[in-house]
Amino acid sequence: MTEMEKKILLTDCPDAKGLIAKITNICYKHQLNINKNDEFVDHENGRFFMRTELEGRFNDETLLADLDDALPAGAQRRLVKAGKKRIVILVTKETHCLGDILMKNYAGALDMDIVAVIGNYDTLAELTGKFDIPFHCVSHEDLSRTEHEEQVRTLIDGYQPDYVILAKYMRVLTPSFVAAYPRKILNIHHSFLPAFIGARPYRQAFDRGVKLIGATAHFVTDDLDEGPIVEQDVIHVDHTFSADDMAKAGRDVEKSVLSRALELVLNERVFVYGNKTVVFK
Amino acid sequence: MTEMEKKILLTDCPDAKGLIAKITNICYKHQLNINKNDEFVDHENGRFFMRTELEGRFNDETLLADLDDALPAGAQRRLVKAGKKRIVILVTKETHCLGDILMKNYAGALDMDIVAVIGNYDTLAELTGKFDIPFHCVSHEDLSRTEHEEQVRTLIDGYQPDYVILAKYMRVLTPSFVAAYPRKILNIHHSFLPAFIGARPYRQAFDRGVKLIGATAHFVTDDLDEGPIVEQDVIHVDHTFSADDMAKAGRDVEKSVLSRALELVLNERVFVYGNKTVVFK
Amino acid sequence: MTEMEKKILLTDCPDAKGLIAKITNICYKHQLNINKNDEFVDHENGRFFMRTELEGRFNDETLLADLDDALPAGAQRRLVKAGKKRIVILVTKETHCLGDILMKNYAGALDMDIVAVIGNYDTLAELTGKFDIPFHCVSHEDLSRTEHEEQVRTLIDGYQPDYVILAKYMRVLTPSFVAAYPRKILNIHHSFLPAFIGARPYRQAFDRGVKLIGATAHFVTDDLDEGPIVEQDVIHVDHTFSADDMAKAGRDVEKSVLSRALELVLNERVFVYGNKTVVFK
Amino acid sequence: MTEMEKKILLTDCPDAKGLIAKITNICYKHQLNINKNDEFVDHENGRFFMRTELEGRFNDETLLADLDDALPAGAQRRLVKAGKKRIVILVTKETHCLGDILMKNYAGALDMDIVAVIGNYDTLAELTGKFDIPFHCVSHEDLSRTEHEEQVRTLIDGYQPDYVILAKYMRVLTPSFVAAYPRKILNIHHSFLPAFIGARPYRQAFDRGVKLIGATAHFVTDDLDEGPIVEQDVIHVDHTFSADDMAKAGRDVEKSVLSRALELVLNERVFVYGNKTVVFK
Repeated sequence: MTEMEKKILLTDCPDAKGLIAKITNICYKHQLNINKNDEFVDHENGRFFMRTELEGRFNDETLLADLDDALPAGAQRRLVKAGKKRIVILVTKETHCLGDILMKNYAGALDMDIVAVIGNYDTLAELTGKFDIPFHCVSHEDLSRTEHEEQVRTLIDGYQPDYVILAKYMRVLTPSFVAAYPRKILNIHHSFLPAFIGARPYRQAFDRGVKLIGATAHFVTDDLDEGPIVEQDVIHVDHTFSADDMAKAGRDVEKSVLSRALELVLNERVFVYGNKTVVFK
Repeated sequence: MTEMEKKILLTDCPDAKGLIAKITNICYKHQLNINKNDEFVDHENGRFFMRTELEGRFNDETLLADLDDALPAGAQRRLVKAGKKRIVILVTKETHCLGDILMKNYAGALDMDIVAVIGNYDTLAELTGKFDIPFHCVSHEDLSRTEHEEQVRTLIDGYQPDYVILAKYMRVLTPSFVAAYPRKILNIHHSFLPAFIGARPYRQAFDRGVKLIGATAHFVTDDLDEGPIVEQDVIHVDHTFSADDMAKAGRDVEKSVLSRALELVLNERVFVYGNKTVVFK
Repeated sequence: MTEMEKKILLTDCPDAKGLIAKITNICYKHQLNINKNDEFVDHENGRFFMRTELEGRFNDETLLADLDDALPAGAQRRLVKAGKKRIVILVTKETHCLGDILMKNYAGALDMDIVAVIGNYDTLAELTGKFDIPFHCVSHEDLSRTEHEEQVRTLIDGYQPDYVILAKYMRVLTPSFVAAYPRKILNIHHSFLPAFIGARPYRQAFDRGVKLIGATAHFVTDDLDEGPIVEQDVIHVDHTFSADDMAKAGRDVEKSVLSRALELVLNERVFVYGNKTVVFK
Repeated sequence: MTEMEKKILLTDCPDAKGLIAKITNICYKHQLNINKNDEFVDHENGRFFMRTELEGRFNDETLLADLDDALPAGAQRRLVKAGKKRIVILVTKETHCLGDILMKNYAGALDMDIVAVIGNYDTLAELTGKFDIPFHCVSHEDLSRTEHEEQVRTLIDGYQPDYVILAKYMRVLTPSFVAAYPRKILNIHHSFLPAFIGARPYRQAFDRGVKLIGATAHFVTDDLDEGPIVEQDVIHVDHTFSADDMAKAGRDVEKSVLSRALELVLNERVFVYGNKTVVFK
């Protein structure tokens, strides 16, 4: 007999009457306990989202087959094992986001295995090494963008990660790179998007005289800075902050927003549809 | 045939397998649409909570009978009409909480009818009158506590309110008063409970040199300042704040916490169990 | 002999050594007590800002003459009486910001006299009337923009206000209107500027799938939505918010940001230079 | 000739007329630039506080002598070199606060040298070692409280630290220990003091059903949990949080509050008087 397990069922389909009843009936029939359940209906677009934490003895095949019979056409459903995800982190030179993730991982606060860190500089090799995690430097110098990305992709693919985290990776990704990891690349952007899109957002913020600066964690799509937003936050600043002070203050909000988004993603709490997300907290 | 209506089903029972399926099946069988559904299981105490926003043609009797058949012993369920609640507000002298509620009500931002305001002073009669709402002054002078409360209760009962809101009503209620309106009296306390229980919390906060002050909205029980908490928030203060400045700053957080708690209560988002709440936001 | 008064000295000049000593010496020589003092040096632009709360018997002429002797060329200084300012409020149809200001004013929480409210619709006449404040409706229908503004300006000028508050006044002002009240027009913008500049910011925010929405209080200049920012804040939203829900949630942050900015302006805590502000909180 | 330096002058004395003028005159006379100046008058207690960031060529002796001549009786003044402070950190078993400080220190975000970490368990030796910082384990087993503290004090004193940071050091200090480092021991307490004083604050918070949990950084005095508060913050929790979830969520606010308090202390922004602080941010 199969053993007790915890899995998460993620369902996403055109809205219809009785969906919660249908899905929970199937779970009940399979003698699975529902530890937590969240649903959302986007009435404007007529789409239903449900995330169900299940516990019991699973027969994945028959469970999914039963669901496929019950759900309307156009349904997507995933059944994922609860627990650790495999993560590859891409970095450039900045310490704060990588450091925060490494430390949280060391403390066991995040459900993941960091299987590798890849940098286009070797600045963060030493820090990564402290935590006995492989670091690969793939310099972009003397390489075309395509050549560089190919090397990075080869490395990533060798690790078969569930998600790729851009922890202040300061290079724009090509569409083919993005297409290779659909809805799997999480980025931290150093502004409260859509404000200050583009280069040097803290300088832009300083010049505009804003009283808040923010950070945005989003999935990466082909449209730079336009991907689906997972998490955002801001901190208050004032006239005493130089552009550099804003950048320094911004690091704290960047790392905390990325950490929170990462935790949501690791726990399979995020649905992506169109350029938006449904996040069950 | 009955017409289309919106109602909210509130279920609260010992946890058991298949509860979501059972309840949503019954709704489905009654051809009721679920617009929004929230559940929570308190695993420590083995209790299940579910709030279901329903739309359709209701036969309350058969729906509740079906539920009673399906639910385990010890279940509580309520089916309430969505929409406006009747509110009586008790006040003393302070303007800010009453003013905020009156203005929000005038703007149509809260789902309620304020049917009366009762004060133990007449300070707020003028303000209440501006909004064409009856104001009753029941002075506590020359009356015993019991006599005073009897007069207030007679007034309240004449209005048959769904909830009684203490908007800075500065008198301690007796157990018999509280018992007359179980889980129906919402109070705003001018501290971040359980800190600074008792009199003059802002003076206490000032003397302690705290860097945050807060407010707590809670249902009233016999244990003064110990009732189930619905909502809390804080604001930052610093050494430049005198005790009076703290009180002034506190008014903003008091009124916003009370307003938010009131909205949650009006929308039937709050379950009370023991001295705690389950709040589906 | 003159009587004891409280005044605020606002100094703004090219930075130089010893400015604090020079200014405070003069105050000391005039036997004025400094109740509170704030300074800021913008090192990037070499500009010095100082706000000094003074108490004593003032001889304004000699005090200002002494300051003019001591301060470098290009200095600006103002000596303003502490206390109530005269305010004219411009509105269109929305209740929340005007209501909040009227209520705070009624409660004595803001240092001002609202001398008039002017609307381009008469929607808010009733609410204003409750507080015995004159309301003037100047419909823009059948008028050119210039004609309409002339009528509004004539009304405003009749009241000689210290500041003009746009409390959700939904019309774009012409440069000549703005020029008539330099640094005296405070506006609340329903987004976290510079995000979502332009029309329907909540719809824009909804379409972008943001997780925070904000509001910005700023002085009005010729560049629409580009004036110096006084105060900003945000609140968290999520996927359950429709564009209308965001607008509703936004009203709370709009009114609180406008109130806070208004209080800062009334207390003469805001310096404007270029398109930025120095705000001494 | 002495070279250009940056120092911070901290003055704290009975309030009197002309203090700002006197102090800034002396700085001016010594040809010192004031980069930043903050003052506060506690009118209730008649005490004046001023923090002045100075730059120039210092003759400490004559500068302090001039100040002593000018200041009223009962004045305290300190002139401290801007820059790195020496820090000893005391820990028990929890990773999050130490980890955050080590990482921030590695990133150069805090103005300090961590000269040693001392634990009453060796749990955090490995983590500390990653950053090449000495770790000393002083087990309290088989030792009296006094014996244990003597060993710890001997270690601390060998390092001559400017401040001692209790980063979740779970032992109560004796008065003689506290007296040895007056106003030099900074602690992080895992509650929003004064709520939930004593043991297991997260369990207490869970049992009370609070909607916010907090953390407090304070200087340590003989009165347990009653020392002067430097910084506090809270995060929102709800009914879905178990006591353990609250503790986990609390770790984030603990570490961020301790980090912020530490930065304030390192930058000499904190005055302690009585059981309160004046914090110039």
